Amino acid sequence: MSIEPKIRVGVLGATGYTGVELVRLLLQHPNVTITTLTSERSAGEKYADVFPTFRGQCDLKLEKIHAKEVAKQTTMVFSCLPHQTSMHHVPTLIDYGSKVIDLSADFRLDKLKVFAEWYGEHSAPSLLKEKTYGLPELNREAIKDAFLTANPGCYPTATILGLAPLLKEQLIVTSGIICDAKSGVSGAGRPPKQLNVYGEVNETLRPYGVDKHRHTPEIEQELSKLAAKDLLIRFTPHLIPMDRGILATIYAKPIKKMSTKDLLLVFEKFYGKEPFVRVLGEGQFPNTKHVRGTNYCDIGVHYDARMELIIITSAIDNLCKGAAGQAVQNMNLMSGLTETTGLMGTALVP
Amino acid sequence: MSIEPKIRVGVLGATGYTGVELVRLLLQHPNVTITTLTSERSAGEKYADVFPTFRGQCDLKLEKIHAKEVAKQTTMVFSCLPHQTSMHHVPTLIDYGSKVIDLSADFRLDKLKVFAEWYGEHSAPSLLKEKTYGLPELNREAIKDAFLTANPGCYPTATILGLAPLLKEQLIVTSGIICDAKSGVSGAGRPPKQLNVYGEVNETLRPYGVDKHRHTPEIEQELSKLAAKDLLIRFTPHLIPMDRGILATIYAKPIKKMSTKDLLLVFEKFYGKEPFVRVLGEGQFPNTKHVRGTNYCDIGVHYDARMELIIITSAIDNLCKGAAGQAVQNMNLMSGLTETTGLMGTALVP
Amino acid sequence: MSIEPKIRVGVLGATGYTGVELVRLLLQHPNVTITTLTSERSAGEKYADVFPTFRGQCDLKLEKIHAKEVAKQTTMVFSCLPHQTSMHHVPTLIDYGSKVIDLSADFRLDKLKVFAEWYGEHSAPSLLKEKTYGLPELNREAIKDAFLTANPGCYPTATILGLAPLLKEQLIVTSGIICDAKSGVSGAGRPPKQLNVYGEVNETLRPYGVDKHRHTPEIEQELSKLAAKDLLIRFTPHLIPMDRGILATIYAKPIKKMSTKDLLLVFEKFYGKEPFVRVLGEGQFPNTKHVRGTNYCDIGVHYDARMELIIITSAIDNLCKGAAGQAVQNMNLMSGLTETTGLMGTALVP
Amino acid sequence: MSIEPKIRVGVLGATGYTGVELVRLLLQHPNVTITTLTSERSAGEKYADVFPTFRGQCDLKLEKIHAKEVAKQTTMVFSCLPHQTSMHHVPTLIDYGSKVIDLSADFRLDKLKVFAEWYGEHSAPSLLKEKTYGLPELNREAIKDAFLTANPGCYPTATILGLAPLLKEQLIVTSGIICDAKSGVSGAGRPPKQLNVYGEVNETLRPYGVDKHRHTPEIEQELSKLAAKDLLIRFTPHLIPMDRGILATIYAKPIKKMSTKDLLLVFEKFYGKEPFVRVLGEGQFPNTKHVRGTNYCDIGVHYDARMELIIITSAIDNLCKGAAGQAVQNMNLMSGLTETTGLMGTALVP
Repeated sequence: MSIEPKIRVGVLGATGYTGVELVRLLLQHPNVTITTLTSERSAGEKYADVFPTFRGQCDLKLEKIHAKEVAKQTTMVFSCLPHQTSMHHVPTLIDYGSKVIDLSADFRLDKLKVFAEWYGEHSAPSLLKEKTYGLPELNREAIKDAFLTANPGCYPTATILGLAPLLKEQLIVTSGIICDAKSGVSGAGRPPKQLNVYGEVNETLRPYGVDKHRHTPEIEQELSKLAAKDLLIRFTPHLIPMDRGILATIYAKPIKKMSTKDLLLVFEKFYGKEPFVRVLGEGQFPNTKHVRGTNYCDIGVHYDARMELIIITSAIDNLCKGAAGQAVQNMNLMSGLTETTGLMGTALVP
Repeated sequence: MSIEPKIRVGVLGATGYTGVELVRLLLQHPNVTITTLTSERSAGEKYADVFPTFRGQCDLKLEKIHAKEVAKQTTMVFSCLPHQTSMHHVPTLIDYGSKVIDLSADFRLDKLKVFAEWYGEHSAPSLLKEKTYGLPELNREAIKDAFLTANPGCYPTATILGLAPLLKEQLIVTSGIICDAKSGVSGAGRPPKQLNVYGEVNETLRPYGVDKHRHTPEIEQELSKLAAKDLLIRFTPHLIPMDRGILATIYAKPIKKMSTKDLLLVFEKFYGKEPFVRVLGEGQFPNTKHVRGTNYCDIGVHYDARMELIIITSAIDNLCKGAAGQAVQNMNLMSGLTETTGLMGTALVP
Repeated sequence: MSIEPKIRVGVLGATGYTGVELVRLLLQHPNVTITTLTSERSAGEKYADVFPTFRGQCDLKLEKIHAKEVAKQTTMVFSCLPHQTSMHHVPTLIDYGSKVIDLSADFRLDKLKVFAEWYGEHSAPSLLKEKTYGLPELNREAIKDAFLTANPGCYPTATILGLAPLLKEQLIVTSGIICDAKSGVSGAGRPPKQLNVYGEVNETLRPYGVDKHRHTPEIEQELSKLAAKDLLIRFTPHLIPMDRGILATIYAKPIKKMSTKDLLLVFEKFYGKEPFVRVLGEGQFPNTKHVRGTNYCDIGVHYDARMELIIITSAIDNLCKGAAGQAVQNMNLMSGLTETTGLMGTALVP
Repeated sequence: MSIEPKIRVGVLGATGYTGVELVRLLLQHPNVTITTLTSERSAGEKYADVFPTFRGQCDLKLEKIHAKEVAKQTTMVFSCLPHQTSMHHVPTLIDYGSKVIDLSADFRLDKLKVFAEWYGEHSAPSLLKEKTYGLPELNREAIKDAFLTANPGCYPTATILGLAPLLKEQLIVTSGIICDAKSGVSGAGRPPKQLNVYGEVNETLRPYGVDKHRHTPEIEQELSKLAAKDLLIRFTPHLIPMDRGILATIYAKPIKKMSTKDLLLVFEKFYGKEPFVRVLGEGQFPNTKHVRGTNYCDIGVHYDARMELIIITSAIDNLCKGAAGQAVQNMNLMSGLTETTGLMGTALVP
């Protein structure tokens, strides 16, 4: 029963999977009032009619985006708009006084040139530099002061959290790192396309984006910061027949001989106080269902003494810690709230 | 930040699917402290080791059942023990002062003879009569005063809620009612058996228990009370390749000609103030994913004017409104709490 | 090693799920050469590039439809075109000498008026009357002489086969028959739409088309012939999270008291010599996985003595016995081949 | 219509997933008569009662194993018995004149010491040396003369076929090879255990056997032969929520700079005449559904020029090319039949 006024929040692009997950989390958040939900396709409809799951829980109507109006109604805006759309609205939101957490890729990269190479021209280049990269475990203090937070991609979150302790402590060779990643189908988005038709993805498994995937530059940018030197990574994503979940299986060479126990000490020290990173015990490895619908990142490590190779396995829910949950975590930090507020739910079994 | 003392709660049989769902809900409940979790198979292990989902959320160890000890540690006990096991522990719990919500079938039937026919001998026959049937929408006031609540079965919950308004208002013929029901695989329980092996149930659909299903007498008992006369029902369950969810498709003959609008008026009047029953609009029908992990029962109705037949479709999560969620709803009533406390989460999309 | 010349076959609309299933079956058929595959969307592409499953098995390129040309290249054409498209090509194919098996709904209904009510204007009304309804178990002799066979719909196949013995023998009341049907997602077709996106249908169950489904008039037409009087049926389809399979659970009232054994005698007599209808023993019921990828229809029956109600459960693969397999069965009959040729594969386990 | 007598075949352990897949394939094989099916658990039952899929296709009864009797009834025996059981029956079968294809791990390893380390004592050590390793693409001529063929494991088949051309041509560094493998749940077998219960594996993804997996020594043994030097491999399997399918994603360092085109030339030359290995074009990668139920191995390759790293993706059906299909391929070779006989079916779409 807090006396302080609630945060007035808007969600742009509230009918994509990331937007819906945000609304789900925000409705359970004790310090938030949702004032605005936008959707270009479904403007005018009640949110609970588009997503009957929300019957009895959300009375809002969807609106078209008017960034200025949204800014007036809110103190915090989450943009779940597509890449290259979000950047056209974010400057206005900021100019008119809202803090913004952007869940698209538009502000994740630091360098205009890299952005241009992967996405095209940027309409708000100065904000690229002023944004804060929203991975709380690595960037907590900066996020507290941010006015524009670029919420990390799902694959980057799992991969960076899996490698951060070892890169930071300079325990692995920075060349030749391999990330073999696996994602549930919600990563392909909600709008219909041949790729996400049930019959095409059910009961099957395949790699995709083997030669080029847009999350690679983001991962490399952040890992390079951790390593304090430029590095490259091999990133191979696969599509898995399940709704949610990402598992990153990462292979890296140690600088010197180690053991699984040594590795665990490093990870436990690095993440010991983190509320959302759970380092598993020796011989234990993550299971995406254990983090489904939660903001946890579960990490299991193994030292292959025969090969002298480190194996890190890192699991998140792509829509939660990989998107909306992490965005709420960022909102909590940017708003002076306890970081875990509204994020302590447990995964369903089964 | 309530000042009143929390309810001290125990869960017997905490490692079955129903028990886990209870623990998930109770951990989120603001007025509850879990003091005791039991499991005969896993006694001595930490709960979070058996279910890694609970790492960082539950520090309890599993114990073997000592009913007397459990009663001392609790004011409310949920029994998720198997049929014919539960009835051996419940009397002791009650004698030593705990209220009990029993999620087995041991106290659902009213008549000893019927129990004997379907399950065998009853070890606590007097409690069969003294228990309260825990379907809050029909029995709210009695539950508030109950010391032993028999939590309804999953199929009965969906079926009874689907038929209650029409039987109560005497709008349907009481003979010839058909319930064609469909359930996710968690209904078959967590212990391994050929029936719930992945390869046997994945990508397939089949009826089961066509000639005899133990939920039939429970359904008929409660529907007969509503109709104020004895009635029979045809009940055909089917197994569906999904974790959770029940859909009951019910067919009944109207006493007189009606329309879908007429039907909706009846249902809206009956359930208008119910927090957990959502009557859908004309032309809308339930989807089990919309209620997954929630305590909602979604109901859609249709009047087939060509056939003069009423079709009612009723969806719940078998583990939540069909078991653990309803049990928490009962606990809230039995404890003088707001009925919806701890039960207002939204289903994941997707 | 047959000496007789192979049947030259064309498939119109070869890139929908029904078309692909046909190609799969025809490639295994010892008496067939596929000469022509058409697709408006993918014309010019190699079939094995669109469906990599067929690499090394099919070298054909997809063409646009030129009905006259197709007729020249073939003696038998399967049309898997959409409703209201097929009827524009079929007359030309027939005029130029090909026999046609039409898998759309365009020729299934007998009466122009009923067609108009459900689909709109018909461009080839005389063929509506001249076609043969292609359900071999009921219509074998006529099919042998047919030049245009209307291949039954998937739901109608399961439902009609389930009811035929009882209607033919006048053992059930013709009013009040209920068919509660369940189908896998491939029934919704291959082109992307919100309805068949993985996240919308995975892990969930829902009814659809409750107030009106286009298969109803086809079912009623054929059942009425069997009953020798007009009858209506309540038909409620549900969408099940699996690729393939239909289960029809049918409820009908007996004319007089019976037993399950009586029912089995009726079904065994009626279907005893049928190669593709398997009547299951007492207490056994179908499982869609047991017929997946096959041309079988598995039927299990039960007499509910308490309710005096007959329950028939009938399972097929919607794309095989419900479409392409039955079409090949019809081709065999129309071509003087053994009816089971090319159709004796077994379902995968699991 | 062959005049030559059919091969008389027995299947030991015919009720496990591998055994059932064998029966399915053998029933479709034009040169085979199945004489004997054994099962310790289900002896005395009709096969079609245990697996109703086979109703109307197989009339055999299951028997207990009497190796001597089986040998009399057969010329070829497939043993699908568990590891360390098979080796007790194989010597008798051979002594009494049957050829044997063993699908367990009992004869795959060459060295007694390695076998002992991973499995325990071997009861027929001389046969370990005399057996032929049954990977036809690498060992065809030897298999033609074999009397005891050790059928490769599923993971080894996918991995060895993926690496063979590069190791044989000495194009990759033999240290540091990584195989990140993914398998459907049927790999865990048919008998119920917590691991393969639907709710435990559905909608989730996890690594397993990260520190030790029994397929590692088999893979290393065969790769070392190809490389003509001892090598080690990092092998990390993952469990995927689908019935069938294996995908191996393999990472290896080139000896010198290459391109994807160079890689494709190597693979196309190596596998150009193979009926069951399909090398995909540039930018194409396998999809396990494309090989489901078939004997194909689909391979896609990519050269990562930034990292100077080779990525090979190799997909098979674990029960078919990874077990029963490959066993039939071996039977064809051992019996002087065309290698592809009975194995040219196409995968279901979808």
